[in-house]
Amino acid sequence: MIRKEYIMTPGPTPIPPEVLLVQAEPMIHHRTPQYTRLFVEMVEGLKKVLLTRNDILTFASSGTGGMEAAVTNCFSPGDKVLVAAGGKFGERFTDLTELYGLGVERYDYPWDETADPNTIASMLKSQPDIKGVFVTHSETSTGTVNDIEAIGKIVSETAAILIVDSISGAGALEMHTDDWGVDVLVIGSQKAFMTPPGVAAVAVSNKAWEMVEKASLPTYYFSFKKARKKYNSDSPETPFTPAISLVRAMSKATRMLLDEGLEEVWRRHRILAECTRAGVIAMDLELFPKVLDRSYAVTAVKAPEGMSGGDIVRHLNREYGVIVAGGQDRLKGKIFRIGHVGYYNIFDLMVALTALEMTLKKLGFPLELGSGLAAAEKTYLEFT
Amino acid sequence: MIRKEYIMTPGPTPIPPEVLLVQAEPMIHHRTPQYTRLFVEMVEGLKKVLLTRNDILTFASSGTGGMEAAVTNCFSPGDKVLVAAGGKFGERFTDLTELYGLGVERYDYPWDETADPNTIASMLKSQPDIKGVFVTHSETSTGTVNDIEAIGKIVSETAAILIVDSISGAGALEMHTDDWGVDVLVIGSQKAFMTPPGVAAVAVSNKAWEMVEKASLPTYYFSFKKARKKYNSDSPETPFTPAISLVRAMSKATRMLLDEGLEEVWRRHRILAECTRAGVIAMDLELFPKVLDRSYAVTAVKAPEGMSGGDIVRHLNREYGVIVAGGQDRLKGKIFRIGHVGYYNIFDLMVALTALEMTLKKLGFPLELGSGLAAAEKTYLEFT
Repeated sequence: MIRKEYIMTPGPTPIPPEVLLVQAEPMIHHRTPQYTRLFVEMVEGLKKVLLTRNDILTFASSGTGGMEAAVTNCFSPGDKVLVAAGGKFGERFTDLTELYGLGVERYDYPWDETADPNTIASMLKSQPDIKGVFVTHSETSTGTVNDIEAIGKIVSETAAILIVDSISGAGALEMHTDDWGVDVLVIGSQKAFMTPPGVAAVAVSNKAWEMVEKASLPTYYFSFKKARKKYNSDSPETPFTPAISLVRAMSKATRMLLDEGLEEVWRRHRILAECTRAGVIAMDLELFPKVLDRSYAVTAVKAPEGMSGGDIVRHLNREYGVIVAGGQDRLKGKIFRIGHVGYYNIFDLMVALTALEMTLKKLGFPLELGSGLAAAEKTYLEFT
Repeated sequence: MIRKEYIMTPGPTPIPPEVLLVQAEPMIHHRTPQYTRLFVEMVEGLKKVLLTRNDILTFASSGTGGMEAAVTNCFSPGDKVLVAAGGKFGERFTDLTELYGLGVERYDYPWDETADPNTIASMLKSQPDIKGVFVTHSETSTGTVNDIEAIGKIVSETAAILIVDSISGAGALEMHTDDWGVDVLVIGSQKAFMTPPGVAAVAVSNKAWEMVEKASLPTYYFSFKKARKKYNSDSPETPFTPAISLVRAMSKATRMLLDEGLEEVWRRHRILAECTRAGVIAMDLELFPKVLDRSYAVTAVKAPEGMSGGDIVRHLNREYGVIVAGGQDRLKGKIFRIGHVGYYNIFDLMVALTALEMTLKKLGFPLELGSGLAAAEKTYLEFT
């Protein structure tokens, strides 16, 4: 068979051909009306996707740069913050806040569960000096999704600001940045935004800006203040040379999302997630999250008894060109993850499920071929 | 006339079509043998271009991210450092080192001159507690070039490390990283490396690593240690999602530079710089640098008496589609800058010089049409 590659990881994700091609257009300078137009169109488009009127600042970096920026721009050493972590990316906020000398109150919840808003409420109540709450929206490493609406309601009633890593969330899952009271939202280009990695963006509320004014941690390349000043100038730009070809791509991809319609984009992600889950469950596999709050960005599946997640991932890749992700850190070998955030439709998922059925069969797992596929089709027809 | 755009700024610079197109290839995952091969090829290629056996670490960021990384990875608050600054980018190191609480000994030299190695030598002699020396290789804002070989010889005889911003230098100008004793070299993708902006790289010597081990400033996204650990693993990668499409482009462009041959690449930049200078001098314009140490990356030209540099830049852009840079900060309106770093040949320069002659004539500057063009041709023929 001709090998074709199917990238089904929760980031980077496939890029629409028309977005890929935009990157191949001749280089333009970032201080020209042509670039300014694209850049502003992207930023204003992102505001529509993220349902926010807050400032959106962009950086040439991966999403982690945006997470670090949230820490260094909003706080001073010793500031007390609450970090809710239940996966590799939640723990990244723990690492970052501890590294920068914040007073970190850890709320570590089990990796197959989600953060309990009540726990956050009672921590905020008993420790009113907490200045910030860090939460992961879609936890890419475990396939869970936190209830940002509920957490936002709680945090908004306190003096603390809410910082949300929505890198694999926004665009795939509903994110009402302003209505939910998210003060600093962090996103990346390479997931629902259908753009190659290399652009991070943050949406910063007025409540967060008040913290920024008081914050004393040094920041330069990722400075919110520098970025806002340059964006609000006569000719909006970034303080440092932007990733021009990626901004062009993201501008195009954001327009595609808006053309599709936000409700429709969310619905697409939900349908694909439900089809994937119906498929793997019909194969007699078990989903990793114990809770029902599962992310529409990625489906985390337990490796069957006596089988390594790594073997499944490798077989899918080598035999069928289907690239899915394994487990990370403590989940290494125990799970595998099928991504469906970004530019996917049902047939992409059927490819992944077909390859998974054949892989399981080959590796000796008892399975009736076609069972997962039929379940996915059935679910799809129920939704459409 | 059909408008065609000619980007003649000292970064971003035109990208070869074959490099542009690489960006349009389907997305691949960064933890696959296919990506690892491209990434390692790029890093090992950069070692050849930079003439170094030191570790090369790469970041998804613009060059300024690499400059900030040099500060935060190598030093602790209060560490005494010497910053030689004679332009906007030299001052960026002043800003960064002061922001991070280092004890900054400033050596500010005039913007139309270069750093005197003897001054650096005597400062190091009288202040043996200086732990680092920051120097700009090619100062993009003024068109000068510092004698890194001489400065490197001086610094290497002390305990201090030498940090060089070679973002617009390396690739256009000779850079013998190891032989000249450069401990931390910072480069970016968007100048001589013929790649869109968005990738920064640093070459880190053993002497610098010893400083990194002792440094206490926090660093995460730009952590040298994290980056080295991930590169030296069984399957070389970066700690955070890389700018995959840009790395593919830079891998391709680095191969092109090596195919052309390093001596030939340097010679090309020298010839184009000399032709540009001969051209503008024959037009009776004056070069901005007082000194003869002029960068081969960019030619900075004084605006003629009674004429604004900004008017020249705007006329070139609007009438002819030739995008050159104006002066920055204190040089705003006083100079304009023609870039010739990266993917240029003599005919690109002739386009710029033609547009410049016609612009000057239109704006009322007395000039014999063709005088600059003839001088550039003559210089070219002398070299080839």
